[in-house]
Amino acid sequence: MENWLKKQAQLNPKKTALILEHSDFTFKELDDSVQLYASKLSTYGVKQHDRIAIFITNSFNGYIAILALQQIGAEIVFLNTRLSKDELVFQLRDSNAKFCLKDDNADLSEIEQIDYPQVRISKTLSLVNDKSYQPVEEFNNDDVTSIMYTSGTSGRPKGVLQTFGNHFYSAIGTSLNLGINYRDSWVLAVPLFHISGLSIAMRSLIYGIGVYLIPKFDETYINKILINERASIISLVPTMLKRLLNNLAPKQKYNSNFRCVLLGGGPIDNWTLLRCNMLAIPVIQSYGMTETASNVVALNNRDAQRKVGSSGQALFPVQLRITQKNNEGIGEIEVKAPNVAKSYLNMPELFRQRMTKDNYFRTGDIGFIDDEGFLFVKGRKDDMIISGGENIYPEEVENIYSKIKGILGMLIIGKRNETWGQVPIAYVILDEKAYLTGQDLIDYGRDHMAHYKVPKEFRQVDHFPQTSSGKVLRRKIYDLPYKLI
Amino acid sequence: MENWLKKQAQLNPKKTALILEHSDFTFKELDDSVQLYASKLSTYGVKQHDRIAIFITNSFNGYIAILALQQIGAEIVFLNTRLSKDELVFQLRDSNAKFCLKDDNADLSEIEQIDYPQVRISKTLSLVNDKSYQPVEEFNNDDVTSIMYTSGTSGRPKGVLQTFGNHFYSAIGTSLNLGINYRDSWVLAVPLFHISGLSIAMRSLIYGIGVYLIPKFDETYINKILINERASIISLVPTMLKRLLNNLAPKQKYNSNFRCVLLGGGPIDNWTLLRCNMLAIPVIQSYGMTETASNVVALNNRDAQRKVGSSGQALFPVQLRITQKNNEGIGEIEVKAPNVAKSYLNMPELFRQRMTKDNYFRTGDIGFIDDEGFLFVKGRKDDMIISGGENIYPEEVENIYSKIKGILGMLIIGKRNETWGQVPIAYVILDEKAYLTGQDLIDYGRDHMAHYKVPKEFRQVDHFPQTSSGKVLRRKIYDLPYKLI
Repeated sequence: MENWLKKQAQLNPKKTALILEHSDFTFKELDDSVQLYASKLSTYGVKQHDRIAIFITNSFNGYIAILALQQIGAEIVFLNTRLSKDELVFQLRDSNAKFCLKDDNADLSEIEQIDYPQVRISKTLSLVNDKSYQPVEEFNNDDVTSIMYTSGTSGRPKGVLQTFGNHFYSAIGTSLNLGINYRDSWVLAVPLFHISGLSIAMRSLIYGIGVYLIPKFDETYINKILINERASIISLVPTMLKRLLNNLAPKQKYNSNFRCVLLGGGPIDNWTLLRCNMLAIPVIQSYGMTETASNVVALNNRDAQRKVGSSGQALFPVQLRITQKNNEGIGEIEVKAPNVAKSYLNMPELFRQRMTKDNYFRTGDIGFIDDEGFLFVKGRKDDMIISGGENIYPEEVENIYSKIKGILGMLIIGKRNETWGQVPIAYVILDEKAYLTGQDLIDYGRDHMAHYKVPKEFRQVDHFPQTSSGKVLRRKIYDLPYKLI
Repeated sequence: MENWLKKQAQLNPKKTALILEHSDFTFKELDDSVQLYASKLSTYGVKQHDRIAIFITNSFNGYIAILALQQIGAEIVFLNTRLSKDELVFQLRDSNAKFCLKDDNADLSEIEQIDYPQVRISKTLSLVNDKSYQPVEEFNNDDVTSIMYTSGTSGRPKGVLQTFGNHFYSAIGTSLNLGINYRDSWVLAVPLFHISGLSIAMRSLIYGIGVYLIPKFDETYINKILINERASIISLVPTMLKRLLNNLAPKQKYNSNFRCVLLGGGPIDNWTLLRCNMLAIPVIQSYGMTETASNVVALNNRDAQRKVGSSGQALFPVQLRITQKNNEGIGEIEVKAPNVAKSYLNMPELFRQRMTKDNYFRTGDIGFIDDEGFLFVKGRKDDMIISGGENIYPEEVENIYSKIKGILGMLIIGKRNETWGQVPIAYVILDEKAYLTGQDLIDYGRDHMAHYKVPKEFRQVDHFPQTSSGKVLRRKIYDLPYKLI
């Protein structure tokens, strides 16, 4: 297919493509800005198929940087700005990125301690244009355009290779569910370095619709946009939705062009759903992952009451099934869709192991499908914790703590929490001679991982429940007596 | 991708899929009817990958027959019911169809003179179900589902192999242009055996929207639907649009859910466009062909005034270019798109010749693209005539007449006509000894080809203008003196 941005610059030159707090850009203007910056990056040495890391916030510069790298045909490695230094080092080295492009608006304290080629966007803006620069003519379905790390069960983060075809089919699947309207615009308030955020930017290029780019989650500012502007769709995680609702004044209503909240990142409680209904805010719950380049399942508002607890039905291009069912029909969720990623970077064999012979992707999630085709997700096969929309993989956190002498064993478990849905807590077995307080362990964690991953409590136990074959029974840990340290 | 009909029966079981004059069907009901009939056809011996011809009108039975054959996974050969006996014989034999399934509502006088296996749908309805019948699980992008004959330059009709992928991308390209709305429904008033009609049925399965099936073009009946029902889109050729407008009473307006006329099959005059504007009927002009499984270019209503005479811009998945340009920028139109057909049946080499090395399809049409990417079609490279939305290829008609002794030469030319846009007329060179009247030639034509292809006038000349190399100069024929016979 033709280069998407160039295509929209031709199809909809005068239509609004990007809306910031104090300015907005048509597709023609966006294209001009992007091509100008791409020519500067070209001067800096970026070429087609180069792998370039970016460390960005939801800023104008970050947005332009993504699109410019895409125009050159680079593979963009999206770094989560909340990662610790160690995590950043791993992803930079694993991806073998040529260098890292840094957003001046981001907190650069961690990344600038790292010895890896990196440059601030501000430093590249003054480069001269490369007059010989040409954008790629076509976006080929099989070409990788984005790489996002996901941790999964092993604890070792895996770079998910997302192609143009993945983003295209993801956008089409969503359009066949939500519909498309020429007057649509999408509020981008989730991180651009997540698939939830990037997929909005890609939809803008494919549908030809505008994006409200939100630099930082500020409920007052976002509600103002949803009330006073013509914004029609917003992607949110449950915590964000609750913050928006709590911030709404009585009798305030979203604008008449508003269509729905697209909700991801975990289940929504019934009470919040009810409040949305009373406020005439349609909520489309959804299910997807980095490996499927955003949603594969969605629950339309018209089915929400009837199917409480469900994530919805498989989108048009998606096939879904449950394997290894128990007697309640619960088993592993498998997905077949043209938006399933190409592979894992440097670990093609691991990816192949997650694909079945008939091309289904083993999600690692468990759930069931009812007789009308509605999916009910029961959780991570490997006990992933979702805290404020962020995924926390217990084994990853456990691996990091395993490096401390004196810790003989640790299990990370999710604990229910009013604000965050879940928070991680730790069960630890300590060496008799070790003198470690909970505060020591929290401090260590904050130095070595994103803060949301750090356990909120440390419970000392003297053993873990095990099966006869020696495998730890994670779910039985709650039964043990413990001492808070 | 999953079988489209089964998918919609699950996604939208209670939504209206098909609306007839006195009844309508939800996707669940449509699926039930189609699967029941498919199991009967299975009893009749139809299997996956069988090639089956159909001779249908826009009837409920015709619609069900198409979908049932698709469920079995047969390749459906669509016969134009207006073809002559000779033309039908050619297409049946060329396609080597196992048999022809005939709609009892069609005029069967020609086809029933043909010695080729055929059966009326009414005779198959009483068959018992094949209990072992199973619909195909997936519609694979590369599998051929429909075959439609198109004549083109050579005069020898070519069976265009249309895949599921062709229909899918065609539908997606149109959705990215027109948008999709859950409440949409499409009026199918063009023939189901044309790509313009079949593509509506395919969009219904892909978008999950309803189809108003119109058995016969009746402007009063169609206007009633557009005024009183919730119909939102209608596909038309210019002649049909004019008939609808002429039939509208003063102050009558189409329903509030009505969105647009999708207009194909040739250019629209300015006066008709103006009338539509006054009546608030948005018109989307378009350009496409059997080989591209419907539209590749569309002109949105918002550009219509500014770009009179244009067919619009290339749809999102489509790339367009002009080659062999003359000094006015006019040349052959070439198209690259995932909806370009797979090949010609039995003539893969001919199809390959029409593809460039970089995968553009040579349309055989001439035109130019302006600096904003708008296409202006100037006509068939080979002087195709468009009469009432039907394509007439002069060489095909000339070939048929060449079989008459006494005709030494014939050139078919289009003549402007108020009602039909164009009508074919013939310039003939007769043997001195031949005694042929215009009426003789009209009678012969009516026996051997669809009536719309028969020349309306026969002009006798004594030579054709030629180039020095002996090639006939078609465009100079108007300069010659002639005698009406």
